[in-house]
Parts: sequence; C-alpha cells; structure tokens
Amino acid sequence: MIIVIKEGTEAEKMEALQEELRTQGVEVDVSRGKRKTLLGLIGNTSRINQSHVKSLDFVEQVIRIDEPYTRASRAFHPEDTVVTLANGTQIGGKKLTVMAGPCSVETPEQMTTLAAHMRKTGAAVMRGGAFKPRTSPYSFQGLKETGLEMLCRAARKEKLPVVTEIMSADKLDVFLQQEVDIIQIGARNMQNFELLRAVGKTRKPILLKRGLSATIEEWLMAAEYIMAGGNPNVILCERGIRTYETYTRNTLDLSAVLAVKRQSHLPIIVDPSHATGKRWMVPALAKAAIVAGADGIMVEVHNNPSEALCDGEESITPDMFDELMQSLRQLAPICGREL
Amino acid sequence: MIIVIKEGTEAEKMEALQEELRTQGVEVDVSRGKRKTLLGLIGNTSRINQSHVKSLDFVEQVIRIDEPYTRASRAFHPEDTVVTLANGTQIGGKKLTVMAGPCSVETPEQMTTLAAHMRKTGAAVMRGGAFKPRTSPYSFQGLKETGLEMLCRAARKEKLPVVTEIMSADKLDVFLQQEVDIIQIGARNMQNFELLRAVGKTRKPILLKRGLSATIEEWLMAAEYIMAGGNPNVILCERGIRTYETYTRNTLDLSAVLAVKRQSHLPIIVDPSHATGKRWMVPALAKAAIVAGADGIMVEVHNNPSEALCDGEESITPDMFDELMQSLRQLAPICGREL
Amino acid sequence: MIIVIKEGTEAEKMEALQEELRTQGVEVDVSRGKRKTLLGLIGNTSRINQSHVKSLDFVEQVIRIDEPYTRASRAFHPEDTVVTLANGTQIGGKKLTVMAGPCSVETPEQMTTLAAHMRKTGAAVMRGGAFKPRTSPYSFQGLKETGLEMLCRAARKEKLPVVTEIMSADKLDVFLQQEVDIIQIGARNMQNFELLRAVGKTRKPILLKRGLSATIEEWLMAAEYIMAGGNPNVILCERGIRTYETYTRNTLDLSAVLAVKRQSHLPIIVDPSHATGKRWMVPALAKAAIVAGADGIMVEVHNNPSEALCDGEESITPDMFDELMQSLRQLAPICGREL
Amino acid sequence: MIIVIKEGTEAEKMEALQEELRTQGVEVDVSRGKRKTLLGLIGNTSRINQSHVKSLDFVEQVIRIDEPYTRASRAFHPEDTVVTLANGTQIGGKKLTVMAGPCSVETPEQMTTLAAHMRKTGAAVMRGGAFKPRTSPYSFQGLKETGLEMLCRAARKEKLPVVTEIMSADKLDVFLQQEVDIIQIGARNMQNFELLRAVGKTRKPILLKRGLSATIEEWLMAAEYIMAGGNPNVILCERGIRTYETYTRNTLDLSAVLAVKRQSHLPIIVDPSHATGKRWMVPALAKAAIVAGADGIMVEVHNNPSEALCDGEESITPDMFDELMQSLRQLAPICGREL
Repeated sequence: MIIVIKEGTEAEKMEALQEELRTQGVEVDVSRGKRKTLLGLIGNTSRINQSHVKSLDFVEQVIRIDEPYTRASRAFHPEDTVVTLANGTQIGGKKLTVMAGPCSVETPEQMTTLAAHMRKTGAAVMRGGAFKPRTSPYSFQGLKETGLEMLCRAARKEKLPVVTEIMSADKLDVFLQQEVDIIQIGARNMQNFELLRAVGKTRKPILLKRGLSATIEEWLMAAEYIMAGGNPNVILCERGIRTYETYTRNTLDLSAVLAVKRQSHLPIIVDPSHATGKRWMVPALAKAAIVAGADGIMVEVHNNPSEALCDGEESITPDMFDELMQSLRQLAPICGREL
Repeated sequence: MIIVIKEGTEAEKMEALQEELRTQGVEVDVSRGKRKTLLGLIGNTSRINQSHVKSLDFVEQVIRIDEPYTRASRAFHPEDTVVTLANGTQIGGKKLTVMAGPCSVETPEQMTTLAAHMRKTGAAVMRGGAFKPRTSPYSFQGLKETGLEMLCRAARKEKLPVVTEIMSADKLDVFLQQEVDIIQIGARNMQNFELLRAVGKTRKPILLKRGLSATIEEWLMAAEYIMAGGNPNVILCERGIRTYETYTRNTLDLSAVLAVKRQSHLPIIVDPSHATGKRWMVPALAKAAIVAGADGIMVEVHNNPSEALCDGEESITPDMFDELMQSLRQLAPICGREL
Repeated sequence: MIIVIKEGTEAEKMEALQEELRTQGVEVDVSRGKRKTLLGLIGNTSRINQSHVKSLDFVEQVIRIDEPYTRASRAFHPEDTVVTLANGTQIGGKKLTVMAGPCSVETPEQMTTLAAHMRKTGAAVMRGGAFKPRTSPYSFQGLKETGLEMLCRAARKEKLPVVTEIMSADKLDVFLQQEVDIIQIGARNMQNFELLRAVGKTRKPILLKRGLSATIEEWLMAAEYIMAGGNPNVILCERGIRTYETYTRNTLDLSAVLAVKRQSHLPIIVDPSHATGKRWMVPALAKAAIVAGADGIMVEVHNNPSEALCDGEESITPDMFDELMQSLRQLAPICGREL
Repeated sequence: MIIVIKEGTEAEKMEALQEELRTQGVEVDVSRGKRKTLLGLIGNTSRINQSHVKSLDFVEQVIRIDEPYTRASRAFHPEDTVVTLANGTQIGGKKLTVMAGPCSVETPEQMTTLAAHMRKTGAAVMRGGAFKPRTSPYSFQGLKETGLEMLCRAARKEKLPVVTEIMSADKLDVFLQQEVDIIQIGARNMQNFELLRAVGKTRKPILLKRGLSATIEEWLMAAEYIMAGGNPNVILCERGIRTYETYTRNTLDLSAVLAVKRQSHLPIIVDPSHATGKRWMVPALAKAAIVAGADGIMVEVHNNPSEALCDGEESITPDMFDELMQSLRQLAPICGREL
C-alpha cells in the first residue's frame, strides 16, 4: 500500500500516521519527493483501515498494490487447489469437470431420465435448482425441500455428485442432511456476507458464482470470506457480467478465467447458459471457455426445454449436450487436460 | 405482452398456445401480418411463464409492454404512498425527509452527541450501522446487537426515529424488539429474496436500497416481493449504480428518481454519500436530488470523520450538515415541498 | 508516477531505468522496501511512455498519481476559465448560460419563430443541428450548409450567438465563414483526434461533449488535445453516459460536474435532453444540474415536437421552456449565480 | 415494428397515423385489445421516423422487431460473405485468417524482420499502425505517411497484404495510392459517420472495429453506413467493450462473435490484444475466439515489446506468436476450418 501525502504537510502529522500504522503491524518506508511524500507500507496490509487513512486531510491518495485477500491469493498459495468431492471426484488440476442438469427440479421422472443421461454421456456432477432465486415473486420458486430430495435421489442412483443452490443460511441443515456434494452460492448472493460466513463454517465444497457486477477482486474477497471461516473448498464460477449490451442476458467474461488463474489458486468453471440466456450460444462458448483455461463448465440441460418451468430458452437438449461432450473430448487433450 | 410468431408456423401450434395462455387467465388478440403473426395478451400477464413461451421453437420474440409488477405500480395505485413511522413522522407526499447519522455505530458518546446534533438541526430520522456488510472479512463488521441498542437508546432520548440495516432474516426479532423504525435492506441484499420475503411478513417500514447494478424494473420487482408479502410500507433509496467511471465510487443516477416517481407510487430518497464516496460531493448532490424530485436524502454525518471506523472519506462533518440543512430549507418551498 | 519494481530485480536494471527516466526530464526518488522497490517520479510525467515502462519484465505496476493533462488541469491553472463569445456573452464564472433550440434545423420559419422565442425568454445561445450524426444511414442527416445558414440568419436577427455541431474538419471553413459562435464536437467524435486537432488550431469557443463511455480523464484529455493546439476556449458538456440501465437513453452523471470543477478550470454545462431521451425528465434534471454546480444547460426546444425530424421525444415545448426559465431564475440567486 | 396506442385514443388520430405510415411504404395491421391497440407494421420499416412516432401524445411505445439494417443483415443475405483481397487472400467462409504485426510502425528494420517472420509463420495479413489514435496529445502519434510506406514496402517484399488504420477521410488518397489492402476504422471512429461514408465510396475491404461501448446493433449499423455507399467488403472486428471491470483494459465479448454470425453475413475477427491490454492473456483468448466461431484473429506482435513505442504491454513476442500459430493449426480442423 502506498500513501501519497499532500504537499506542505507538517512532519509531525506524518510521523503520527507512521506510528499508528506501525502499531498495526506494517513497516513504513518513507520516500520524500519535491512536492509529495510517499509512504510505502510493507507487510500484511489487509487489516489497515484504508477508509480512515483516506479521510485524513493531509492524505491525497491511498493506492493498494497488494491484493486485499490472502487465503484466496496465489501469492500465498502458489499451487493449484484441487477440490475433492465426497465420492472422490476432483475439480481443478488437470481434470475438466462438466456439471449439467435442468435449471429447476420438476418431477422425479425428469430427474431420473436426465441423471441417467448425464451419467451415460459423462457429466461428472449433476445440477438442478430446488430453491430458485427469481426476479418476480410470482414466478415458480422451486420445489424446495421436495425438489432437493428428488435431485439427490436421482443423482445418487447414478452415483453422480450433486450441485445445487442455497438461498439462506437457515436451510444449511437440510443441505447437509441431504449430503449435497457442492453447495452453490448464486450470483445475487455473492455478497450476502451472512450466507458466506455460514458456509465458511462447514467443510463442504462451495461453488461461488460471480456477482452480476462484481469485480474480480470483490469475487475473490467473497471467496476469502468463506475461506476465512476455515473452509478451503471454494470453486469459482464465471456466469457473465452486466454490461450495456442487451443482445445477450449478460456478457460472458472469459478473460476473467485467466485473471482468476493468475490471482488465485482456486479452480474456476464457466456457466455459458446463464451468461447468454440463449441455447444456441451455449455449446460454442462452453468450448471456448475450456480453451481459455477453465477447469470445467456448468450447463443447463433439459429433456424438453419448451416445457421447462424456468429458463427454458437457455437450456440445451440432451442431444446438443451429447454433441458438446464429444467436442470437449476432442479439445481436452489439445488443452493438456483430461475429461 | 406481445408474442411474435415466426413466419410459416402451422395454425394448430398457434392455437394450442393461445388455448394454453387463455387457461392462464389472459385474453389473446391475434394480428396476422404477411410475414409474422402477433399475439397480443390482455389482462394480468405477471404470472405468464415468459421463459416457457420464449423457448417454443415457433416463437420469435416475446415483448412485454406492461410492467411485471402490480402492487408497486402507479398504474394500479395512482396516488403517492406516504409511509408513516411509529412516531407519526411521514415520508413521501409534500414532506421532505432528512435521514442522517454515522456510517457505523461506534460509542455511546458518539451516538448521544450526534443524536442531539441531528435533532437540533432538524434531521427527521437517525441512521447508523450496527450490522455492517463489508467487502473484506477483515474489516470492522459493526458492533451488532450492542450497536443496535446504542443507536436506539441515543435516538430515543432525542425522540428521533431510527433507520438501520438488517443483513439476515434471523436478526429480524432483534430489530422488532428494539423497535427499529425503518429496517434497511442494503444494496448487496436487494435480491436476497429470502430476506425480502421475511421483511414482507412484517408491517415495518422498509428502506430498500437499489442494487449495485439493478435496473429500475428489478428494483421495483424487489419492492414487489416485500409488498406481495403484505407489507405496503416500502421506501426506495437510490445510492448510485456501478458504471465504468472510477472517479466516483458509484454513479449517482438522479434520472432514476423521476423514473421511479412515474412508474411507482412509493416514496424515494437519495443517498449521495454512498453514491460518490467523496465528502465534498455530498452537499451539492443532496441538493440536486431534492430539486430532481426526491422525497428526501440520507447522508452520513460523523463528528470526526477521520476517526470513523468505516467510510470516513464520505462522511460530512456536523458543520457541513448544518449548512446543508440551511440550503435545503431555502430550496424546499421553491420545489413545493416542506422540510 | 510511481513505478513498482518486482522483488529480486537486479540493481543494474533499475539503475538503467532510472537513467532513462531522468533523460526524459523527471527526477526519480527511490524507496526500497523489504519486498518491493518503488520509484517515485517527480516533475512533468505527461510525456513518459507508460506503456514502455509497463512492458519491462521487472516492472510490476505503474501507478499514475498526477493527471496526464496540464493545460486543462486546475492544478496548473487554479482560476475558473470564463469563455467569452464574439458578442461578449460569457460562459463560466458567476454566469449561468442557457443554450436552447431544436435538435435539427428544419425550415426558416421554424428557426425565426424559435429564435424570437428564445430571445424573449432569455436563452443566451441558440442551438440547432445542421450536420446531424445519425445512427442509421437512412435517417434524416440534416440540411447541412443550407441549415447552417438558416440557423445563423435567424439567430443573428435576434442577436443570439449560435452553437452547432461539426462532424469533420473539412467543414471548418464553412463554420468559420458563417461565424458560428461555438463549434460543438459531438459525443461520438470526442476522440476523433483529427477533428480535435483541427479545431485546436482555431481560437473559436469549442463545446466538447463527453463521449458515450468516456471517463472524466479521457474527456479532459480530449480537451487537452484542443488546448495543446493553442485554443484555450473549451466548454465541456455532460450529456449522459452509457450504462446497463435502459429506462433512460443514457444515464446523466451529475457527479461529473463536481469532478470536472475540481480537476479542471474549464466551464461545464449539462444537456439533459440527450442524457435522458425523455421530454418529461428534462426540466427537473436541468434544474438539478444547476444546483449541482453546472455553469449552464443545453436543452432541445421544438415548436411542435411531434413533427420534429429528429429526437422529437426529448424536445420540450416552448411553454415548458418558459416555465423552466422561470424556475432557473428562482434557483440562480440561491446558488450564488446570475442568469 | 409494433406501435402501442394508448387506451382511449380517438379512432381518427389512429387512422391518420396509419395513413401516414402507409404513404411511407409499409402495411399496417391493426390489433384492437380491450385496453390497448397495437399497430403492426409490415414491410421495410428502416425509413420510418421512429422518433416522430414516439413523440405523438397517443403513442405509448414503439417496439422494433426487425433489425434497422438490411445490407448487413443475414435475413436479406443468408449466405456468408467472403471478402477477397487484391492478392486473392480470402477472409470468411471456411478460411481462418491471422493478422499480425506491431502496434505501430517504428523502423524499416523492425518492419522487414517482422514481415519475414509473419510470412514464415503463416500470418495471412500484416498489421501496423502509421496513424495512431492516442488518448494523449503528448504520446507518440505514429510515423504517418512515412510509416505507411515502411509498412507497405516491408509487407510487399514478403507478398503479405496489409491492414492499417485511417483516422480521417482526407488521408484516403494516400491509403489508395499505397494500395493498402484493408483499411481499418478504429474503435473510436466507429461512429465517425463522415469517415464511414468516405470509405463506403471505395471498394476497398474495410476492417470495422467495434466501438468502445457500441451495441451489436450500432456496430452493424456502422457497417450499414459503409455498405449503403456501395462497398460490400466489410470485415468486423471485436476488440473488447468497456465495462466496470478494470482488471483488463476492456472486456472481450466472445458472445458477440456468435451474435454477429447470426444477425449478419459479414466475416468477423477478434483482437485479443486491445481487448485485454495484457500480453499473457492474448494466446489463450485468441484460441478461444477461434473455437467460438470467429473467422480469424488480429494480434500485436513486436520483436522487442519492452522497446515498443506504443502498447508494448499487450504485444506478444515472435516466439509466443509461433506457438500460438501451432495451437491454431491444431484447433482449425476440429472447428471445421482451414488455416
């Protein structure tokens, strides 16, 4: 962290500030220029109250040059993290992971059929929404506990691990009882800090979606919340960001995959279904995500998209999914990955 | 709602869709053109599953021409809503409301001093954060229950109603016990649907901040969630949106005040402190907000901003606040309002 | 400018860089920390090739702490600039300036009627588009030279100065011949550097609109282009920026008025017509702009908006304009301004 | 186009509007609902003055359901366009095209070396900037005519076609004299309509970069400007859009490749260098672009990036370029393309 001191500041004020900073555990290097003085802070600056420093009348600017996160940071943890699910499935490392399934859990038959199909085609994890965050209070809100059970039963029969979204901490017990393999935090809850803290107290793998307009730094800070609670099993998921462009529902940001890989050791997957909201865009962008370096993808598959209770227009059909898996099998070795 | 049917669609498919829509309680007007056919839906379309319709292979486009909200909509409720607090204070209508106080509650002395100052200067509601949503898990997270009590005690002594943020539904009982006058839903929780539902079951006035990148429609849909639960006492708060510009923390969107006033009957206030993150911008933008038509403002005031535990750089001093109140008193009658 | 050097960089490399920087006319302060070394550059850094420095393999980051502009900067020119038009009209300082007129020049009658009305109501400058930048090649492109003449003739009769947009440098002679008082550079041409250079060679007052997604810094750099050519007469115009919100055409950024006033000495006006694209929003936001500190406004006025050849939905009627002028007259003294 | 008429509008007003629209060459289908009436316009609506219709007091909304472009539209031209350069090189169709070279032309030696390298490695087109659009008037502005000549001479020796940027119409003669193979319109000039019109009068292949915050529709409308002048040889280039994220210089929008392919028949290439501003991101995103369906890429290659006079931090080295070409050769057949 660098603190730029205004021209003409009295030496005493500066010294008082330096003293204060030192008591907060950092070293201070002073660089006096003709007009401005720079204080370079060395050490762990993540606990410095930046806002306080900024509000001092003799401080011109506060510039952070180190990331504000440590547990999620590659600088402190150079090796790639591989998250291992209860059944041994690994996410990250050389492995490519495909998570697939319907937007929302609807019927036992649907789940059984899809689970069998997923398994046969080679998906590693089954997704399905039981608790659905919907923009409108009048839209279908998911089958809740019943849906969660349907999903888990169908997946278990096929020995598929399950990923599904939690919307509030008070449902955590139900998720743990049902032995959900990966608990998803949705984009709208990325900064629901109470929920982050709650899942941080478990050791369950957490799929943390990027917020609608979250910067990469804020996203990694959300991961840090979970990790600060003691849970190192975080998987990131890029799912499109909000921009001015309205052709797609969101704008898929594949450069974020590269950024995350450089800044952090955590695995990252990509969800092209929610990113675009358009079925016909999903396969091409899923492949592009893998080539860009993602550790996997998450796609919505529905046996009958036009009958889906939610997000039908972005769900691919089982046939499209089979084709996509074939393409990914061709791409994996070229990318030095295993599927 | 208008459904655009693709050229060359068989009559039977279209009829089946019409039939289905009619069973969902809307009338369907058919307009056959040379290339395309339009289905115009008449009636309450807020329960139509748009996503399902969009995913039909013979549907080209689905265009909504009515708002998806009804309780929050001015079309269904032409009169301005005035929210009345427990002590009789009114928000909305001709009244201008100033909510002020520190970003976070720190000490009993601070709260007592500020409450007395607020009261004297004419603020109508005292703000203060006890549960603080912070980007970093290592930042000060607020004094929680203790802070809430400090805030309420100090405000009550001065007969000031209180507004403070709730971060999860499980604290609702504490907020009700402490008789918090206005419960704030923060920007990051605007689409925390479980929390919206929870406060919707009370009859407490709710201050609903606009999400970081929420459209006006999504914001009003969040209000609809609260109102659908039976709580009509919603106050909206514009607090800046996320854009590409980095000079200010967010970009204050004053046109949103006018948009909300046209689309909805709910009162709306403006928070220039969080919008800009810069103390020196607060007074001018607070005044501009009133002139643009806001029903009030919410500003951060701190007795000693450089010692604030949070957001010191955006807090104005008590002296700046006094001056601002004087300006607002000059502006109010010109705007046809009372302060 | 601060250059952050990577850990473990050899002393020689750093010294070579320092040497190179010194030959470019800046002083270099070295601050050695435990992990990183900081080079603080003192002096005029606007000519340093940042991109070159960034691409050095031992450089971790380059942080600019001074603005890259000098002529447009308040730091180098603390007094407010007042731009004086040929007829003595002043823009900036204590004066509030209202520029008004139709989006595009259509007929001599229209221009004569409007000019008389503008004059009577107290507008200081008449606007009107003769060369129109239109998104579609099939839309009305303006009356060009003929329109320019109509505008100038009508305005001159009423002794009103004229502001109108130039779209390419090869029309500059026509603008000079017609003695256009203020030459407007439109938002889409804000970084048309050839055009900026061309108008920079004249001494004509230039109204520089903010680009659709220009940062405040880029905007001031565009002003710097004009000023670097020797023309100090630049007036800035905020006209809304592109964001994700679609309710309004653009999002009016009134905090930019305050930012520009702090960073620069140039006058700034606000155009709420293009910012919102909605007639009914114009008066309230025009007033808010003045209260926020703008030196004036530019609004579209049309005698018969529904017959306008362009942008009719955002033009206010002459009656609305009269009312707006009355409101501004009430607000001016409260803001310490003259109208 | 659909026009939504307000409730309670007199029949005469509606009929007058219908009459007016019919004289503009479209048919009007009327759909009367209980509350609203819809007018469905059939035929070529690209010349309808939407703004006029919107400003009528009895019109609630105007909804366009057809694109406003025709020449650039796939609906009117279902086959992919293949642009053929003077030397027979084809862009579009099955062919993948790699355009590479330095950001700016610096010395004859640099150009000769790089051209030889490009040729050997298999780039199809050589890029290099002679006229440079720079944010700062104090930055290196390119070698201009001299640079253009250097570029063309070096490329010609290796029989490589050339792509380079034009900044104003008055240089068009120089570009034609030098027989530049592809004339580039930069992002900042995407809506410099005079320049679009000027290149539209030639038959030269035009590389049209997407504007910094241009929607896909605006971008295709800019292409339409060129094509409306009679020049069908337009190649689109996605180069990142402006978003709130600051980690990368811009946000590469690969879904735009798919959108353009569906909406238009024009070839599209991707520039990951300008999109990210980071050398280490370029190869992965170049590959992802091809997999997403782009017809080629444009990358900056510099023999000595840290000595580059411009954008050194985003230029890849010749070695990185060789490796990238090898990867693309592996990917091409999997994507059904030829390199």
